[in-house]
Amino acid sequence: MRKGELTRTMILDDALQTVSQVGFGGLSIGKLAEQTEMSKSGLFAHFKSMDQLQLQVLQRARERFLDAVVRPALTVPRGESRVRAVFNGWLRWSEVELVGGCVFVAAAVELDDRPGELRDALVRAELDWLELLATVAGTAISEGDFRLDLDTEQFAFEVHSVMLGHHHASRLLRDKRALDRTKRSFESIVDAARPAR
Amino acid sequence: MRKGELTRTMILDDALQTVSQVGFGGLSIGKLAEQTEMSKSGLFAHFKSMDQLQLQVLQRARERFLDAVVRPALTVPRGESRVRAVFNGWLRWSEVELVGGCVFVAAAVELDDRPGELRDALVRAELDWLELLATVAGTAISEGDFRLDLDTEQFAFEVHSVMLGHHHASRLLRDKRALDRTKRSFESIVDAARPAR
Repeated sequence: MRKGELTRTMILDDALQTVSQVGFGGLSIGKLAEQTEMSKSGLFAHFKSMDQLQLQVLQRARERFLDAVVRPALTVPRGESRVRAVFNGWLRWSEVELVGGCVFVAAAVELDDRPGELRDALVRAELDWLELLATVAGTAISEGDFRLDLDTEQFAFEVHSVMLGHHHASRLLRDKRALDRTKRSFESIVDAARPAR
Repeated sequence: MRKGELTRTMILDDALQTVSQVGFGGLSIGKLAEQTEMSKSGLFAHFKSMDQLQLQVLQRARERFLDAVVRPALTVPRGESRVRAVFNGWLRWSEVELVGGCVFVAAAVELDDRPGELRDALVRAELDWLELLATVAGTAISEGDFRLDLDTEQFAFEVHSVMLGHHHASRLLRDKRALDRTKRSFESIVDAARPAR
């Protein structure tokens, strides 16, 4: 990586931490300049505008999510074990990767009523993620772990809902049983996906 | 209701619509003055400070939620039918009551990393709601609709997660199947709560 590229990535990672806590609306060039010890004009040289900065922060979140969750899970054998790897990877992502929890969950609520490029980019990211969940559930069908008539999109919706529940219980309620409840919910969904015995 | 009380409620309902769309951070005395055609000083006479206004908007949301969802459900016979009434009441609340969807879902993500009185009030509201869901599930146990060993708090967590999933699919993704997916998820959770045959 060239130095300019490294600096850019460092700034985006810093901005990402802020967004995970206070949302895209809480990003400010001034505060970011303080955090990164750069000048405002130096920041603008990298990002041109706040809109560009926000879009690139979201893009950076996708890259990190791919590295932290998706790629490792795809090295796990197809089937239920890969479904579990995706789920556990997401849990780890949500608990340790960013100080404010999963940035996509936070952005979803912040942007749902704000039309624009940033919202469109987020919707694409979320659709890709739900599609990936459904596709991985499909590998569990072809491996015989899940039943043939499983609606994989419904499965993805349900697992995703539990992830939202986890964010709510752990981040807002600070519920110590959040992780346990989340895992039990996931097990119920997986149980219901298995072939009838 | 006295005239002052009526005015106050009208202002709070207006503010609530704004919060449902852009969050508590998007409330501004200036914009609210325009919307309600009142002077800023008139508004301040009612609410003293932005903090007080926000707290009262949240309180107003709780009152409306009680009227729209909780009270009607409690007139329905105890048991699974009351569980369904609560769920359907919430769905209606989320879809039609406020332009920006369920204000509690929006506030949960906005406030999770913002310590203070408003966050504390929201946490109390959410705990009350989860407790109500669990209590209503308990009536279904005593009526014999749900199994005796059902963990009602886990049931509440799962139903609540599906509600968050509904908000995400309908508000962010504008998914036309959101309602159908949400109802199917709810049916799975209810099925799993029934006594083994």
